[in-house]
Amino acid sequence: MTELVQECKSLFKNLLKIPDNFSIFFMSGGATSQFASIPLNLIDNPNSMASYVVNGAWSNLAFDECKRMAKVTLANPNQPKKDWNYAPKLQKSDIHPESKYVYYCDNETIHGVEYSQPPESFGIDLVTDMTSNFLTKPVDFTKFGIVYSGAQKNWGPAGLAIVIIRNDLLNKKGLPYKPKSMDYSYLAKTDSSEIPVPAFALVVARETIKWIMANGGLTRMNELSVQKSQILYDTIDQSNGFYVNSVKKDSRSRVNIICKLQGNDKVLTDLFVNEAQKHGLLQVAGHQSVGGLRFSVYNGMPLDGILRLQQFMKDFQANHQNKPKL
Amino acid sequence: MTELVQECKSLFKNLLKIPDNFSIFFMSGGATSQFASIPLNLIDNPNSMASYVVNGAWSNLAFDECKRMAKVTLANPNQPKKDWNYAPKLQKSDIHPESKYVYYCDNETIHGVEYSQPPESFGIDLVTDMTSNFLTKPVDFTKFGIVYSGAQKNWGPAGLAIVIIRNDLLNKKGLPYKPKSMDYSYLAKTDSSEIPVPAFALVVARETIKWIMANGGLTRMNELSVQKSQILYDTIDQSNGFYVNSVKKDSRSRVNIICKLQGNDKVLTDLFVNEAQKHGLLQVAGHQSVGGLRFSVYNGMPLDGILRLQQFMKDFQANHQNKPKL
Repeated sequence: MTELVQECKSLFKNLLKIPDNFSIFFMSGGATSQFASIPLNLIDNPNSMASYVVNGAWSNLAFDECKRMAKVTLANPNQPKKDWNYAPKLQKSDIHPESKYVYYCDNETIHGVEYSQPPESFGIDLVTDMTSNFLTKPVDFTKFGIVYSGAQKNWGPAGLAIVIIRNDLLNKKGLPYKPKSMDYSYLAKTDSSEIPVPAFALVVARETIKWIMANGGLTRMNELSVQKSQILYDTIDQSNGFYVNSVKKDSRSRVNIICKLQGNDKVLTDLFVNEAQKHGLLQVAGHQSVGGLRFSVYNGMPLDGILRLQQFMKDFQANHQNKPKL
Repeated sequence: MTELVQECKSLFKNLLKIPDNFSIFFMSGGATSQFASIPLNLIDNPNSMASYVVNGAWSNLAFDECKRMAKVTLANPNQPKKDWNYAPKLQKSDIHPESKYVYYCDNETIHGVEYSQPPESFGIDLVTDMTSNFLTKPVDFTKFGIVYSGAQKNWGPAGLAIVIIRNDLLNKKGLPYKPKSMDYSYLAKTDSSEIPVPAFALVVARETIKWIMANGGLTRMNELSVQKSQILYDTIDQSNGFYVNSVKKDSRSRVNIICKLQGNDKVLTDLFVNEAQKHGLLQVAGHQSVGGLRFSVYNGMPLDGILRLQQFMKDFQANHQNKPKL
């Protein structure tokens, strides 16, 4: 088990070019555990607080969780809280001066919104949730204090997370009621030897990283993500309003392409999902909280699948556009 | 995944005869997460507290973790904190009247100490860690508020835990800084659909329960545990002091048999471990915090392995007793 953990750490370090002044460790659970762990570890006195960018369902959950632990403020209070459709840039005045860190979600899975570049955080440590776009592009770690990711999208089965943290942040005392199983310093020091992580998930992670390395690395994964998503965005944008994606163009996710059918027609949407399934195109319904359609094109999705989906979208449109309502 | 969770819950319910007024759910992580989760969920105002029986390394860690979260008191302050070697009975006066629950560890893995019957808790809800003896005997749930177990000893790989909780305890508000990923009420309600658990571990759990059912159920597992452990305790007790187990007889664990070699000789102990390994008898070193030897005879250990170990112990004694010090 110790060898497996070390091998995985070494593979992640090589693939992502993680600098020597960062520590890597694994934790059981997914993003929800990190939502609590981050304030518990980074905030160490009752006067300090955190600034959160909330521009989608996941950053919103992270913000709500931080409220239980510590004082927290919104970095983008003027963005409407519904229909999140862009990745806001930050001004210095957006960040509360007592903030110990600035938190944002690099890719909002449900809302199909992704940062093309991390937001400026003006010298405050930047913490990011990369659960759904981790290993789909290179990462510039000089911009971050913490990068974390749950395994279940691009690198393994659910139930495992990776935390990549700048070493000086491990010296923070944190909040007094921080559970030991969420104590970053303890976890980095004991290196999964005291608090178990699921070994099977690590084995899958190891093989996945080797696969990425053998297939061109992160630069190539990014090229493929851009190519695959662009095919679908073009299909949507050229559909004369049959398919609608309302995410601002510079914030469109390379991995989660969402859209609604004309008039957001529920019956037509259900028909699309069912017929797609008959064509072997699975899991295309949008998240239940937003409806519509969502095409997730993680590293595991081949180009051929995208081309088949594109053809299906065109055929479906030809069969159903401007037809009388079902 | 939902079907797998439901199937596992149903299997656990049938095997353990869990009453209808209990809920069952799974969590990522092991006992360390539960050490925090229990006070976070069961204590809901700053004046209340918990009483802990500390009689081994694991209950001691649980006690220390509770201190971070809430007020806590020892139920057995007169038991020496080192060389834990018995499972204390409780008097009513041992339990602080403001206690929301009484906590104990049913089997102390490292110290080889097991409760043959749960301690009396005088109407206060009893919470127990059964990580290392779960599924080795029937459980009378009318005595408990919560029974929990990490998977890694008797029912699956590390990284998964089961919590079995009386339904009325799910209505407690808990402490305000309780992480959502540790919120029993939320976890019971969402049933692993929102917070992921490792699916592979659940598959192993499912097959393990089926195996137990096909091999005589929990009554048979208990008979085998008694038989296997008794063979080793007899070998120890009949060794004329070559092997020494100092746990009080009514508190000896049926699953973790610890002993020391005469004079607690480190060189002889290392030799035992190395020679045992050559005979295919693995993992017989005691935990690093206590030294000596530990024979763990979980459900997966066949009787034949015990008999081979017994023969090896006798041969080793014959070769090394009363020989000049190595």
